[in-house]
Amino acid sequence: MFELHQHKLQALYFKPSYERLKDRIKKAAPDLDIYLIDEDGQLTHEGSRVTRKQIHPDYFWVHSELLKSPVFKDYFALMQECHNVKWLHTINTGLDKGPYLDLLKTGVRISNNHSQAIAIAEYIMAQVLSCFQNLTDFSDKQKQGVWKYRPFREIYHTRWLIIGFGNIGQQVARRAKGFGVDITAVRRSKKHEKLADHVLSLDTMDDAIGQADVVVLACASNQATRNLVDAKFLAQMKDNAVLVNVARGDLVVEDDLRQALDAGRPGHAILDVFVDEPLPEDSWIWNHPAISMTPHCSNAGSGMRQRSDDLFIENLNRMVNGQLLVNEVDKTDIV
Amino acid sequence: MFELHQHKLQALYFKPSYERLKDRIKKAAPDLDIYLIDEDGQLTHEGSRVTRKQIHPDYFWVHSELLKSPVFKDYFALMQECHNVKWLHTINTGLDKGPYLDLLKTGVRISNNHSQAIAIAEYIMAQVLSCFQNLTDFSDKQKQGVWKYRPFREIYHTRWLIIGFGNIGQQVARRAKGFGVDITAVRRSKKHEKLADHVLSLDTMDDAIGQADVVVLACASNQATRNLVDAKFLAQMKDNAVLVNVARGDLVVEDDLRQALDAGRPGHAILDVFVDEPLPEDSWIWNHPAISMTPHCSNAGSGMRQRSDDLFIENLNRMVNGQLLVNEVDKTDIV
Repeated sequence: MFELHQHKLQALYFKPSYERLKDRIKKAAPDLDIYLIDEDGQLTHEGSRVTRKQIHPDYFWVHSELLKSPVFKDYFALMQECHNVKWLHTINTGLDKGPYLDLLKTGVRISNNHSQAIAIAEYIMAQVLSCFQNLTDFSDKQKQGVWKYRPFREIYHTRWLIIGFGNIGQQVARRAKGFGVDITAVRRSKKHEKLADHVLSLDTMDDAIGQADVVVLACASNQATRNLVDAKFLAQMKDNAVLVNVARGDLVVEDDLRQALDAGRPGHAILDVFVDEPLPEDSWIWNHPAISMTPHCSNAGSGMRQRSDDLFIENLNRMVNGQLLVNEVDKTDIV
Repeated sequence: MFELHQHKLQALYFKPSYERLKDRIKKAAPDLDIYLIDEDGQLTHEGSRVTRKQIHPDYFWVHSELLKSPVFKDYFALMQECHNVKWLHTINTGLDKGPYLDLLKTGVRISNNHSQAIAIAEYIMAQVLSCFQNLTDFSDKQKQGVWKYRPFREIYHTRWLIIGFGNIGQQVARRAKGFGVDITAVRRSKKHEKLADHVLSLDTMDDAIGQADVVVLACASNQATRNLVDAKFLAQMKDNAVLVNVARGDLVVEDDLRQALDAGRPGHAILDVFVDEPLPEDSWIWNHPAISMTPHCSNAGSGMRQRSDDLFIENLNRMVNGQLLVNEVDKTDIV
């Protein structure tokens, strides 16, 4: 819980994000003292210019408009200069990149966004089903005018190993369960999880790798998970298994993946994230026949912004009322 | 229930199907008197040739091997000649084609196959997700080496109208519910249905057509449903809605669909069945940009045969023990 505040709580918002939601913001936090930073990096308070030294925000909000603007560097720099920052709410989910880790170390509380989980889960289900059914082949046959009945592989009664069982992993499990999939969740906590048939940890998952028809990487990138999917991991997979990475490129040793796919084990990889992004023009990944790849947009579902806005307003309301935040980040997840 | 039998129950099996399952058949029905018809149409009993007049089967079984063989015509003809047929178990789901209706009229009991429902439901989910996310575009961009982040349409919180809520409709609903889809089932029975949020009948569904993001045709073809999807129906749909037909081609007036798609309402059609099959080479359907079509193979899931075999054995066991059959066909469904 937040302490109830002696002074008016100061927030610094990116102007375009604020303009879009100002009615909801005022309703959720009528007493908030609002400073704005515009697209040129200029600071204002109630319509008047102010300088950096005049403002002492307790709280920041990173939304998608800001991330797409060059001013995001100024915004983050200002956040790091302040010594009284209490809270940052961000639209990002993975916090291994940018200044988040440094901010967490200085004691700032961060709540992140899980509105992307629904979109990412839909992306995964679409890509896995498309791969199993070879929809590209159906589409090609249609273009060619070829009528040829053929069987397709079902996901019914397959086994999925979901590494990382936060919001994304759970949303995947919720959908896959409806298809009769057997779910093994890999997570640190061993607590009972109704969406998973089995719960393992990184240390105990070795046997499960060899039994999985689909392996989904949905974990944070940290010391324990970087380069997790290396030659040894890939050699344990079934030869017709599918690897899905929607988390971070550095979870996978890309050269090892290339050798593994060339050798036919696993059978296919669905990749939305890469060690280098954008993926370099000369990367082997573009043309590998056993890879379906997308440009880090598994989160780009049409409902994402609405859900992100709703979560931000919910947390703003909680903050000004001294309540626990939704999705407060556990620092140990990203170290 | 079947009456318990005064004489040994006679079955006529297609030899390749029998050979594959004979151990399971003997275990389920040790006293069954088994006649075989081979791929040349020759009849045998315990290894010796017999004539048509010497056999009086009580029970028949139509499996996929038979449907693919030219001898299926002999098999059906023989079935229609017999006057003491009690039961036919078939791998087919829709019974509007072939001699099924005539057999039902003469009092033969028929149990059909719903093992295809799981495959068809996976097909529908794959095709709808692929359409919403435009997976073909992702695949094209990969081939072109283009890195371009773009949003995609979610199925979360969309409304689906499922016309026909038998096994197929229910399996679709089970999967779609995991995605947070609102399900309206159209069926004759108004009984409470936990997989559906709303239950309507053909007579009361008009308003729901206009609210649906996805319309799935999963009903039998009969007097009430033939030509159901005509110009009037299509004009009620939302302009970005998707029509899915996995049932029978004659549920849709294809010329009306063409005009509707050309006018942009609905936005897309996913078709696995057609008025003429195979689809004629010169059909407009092959090349229409708003159609994804497949050659009547939405049922061709990899687990279908195993499930069909299991159901056949289950029903064989029930029959010889005088128990109610699974999936006994209600004659009124196909009239």
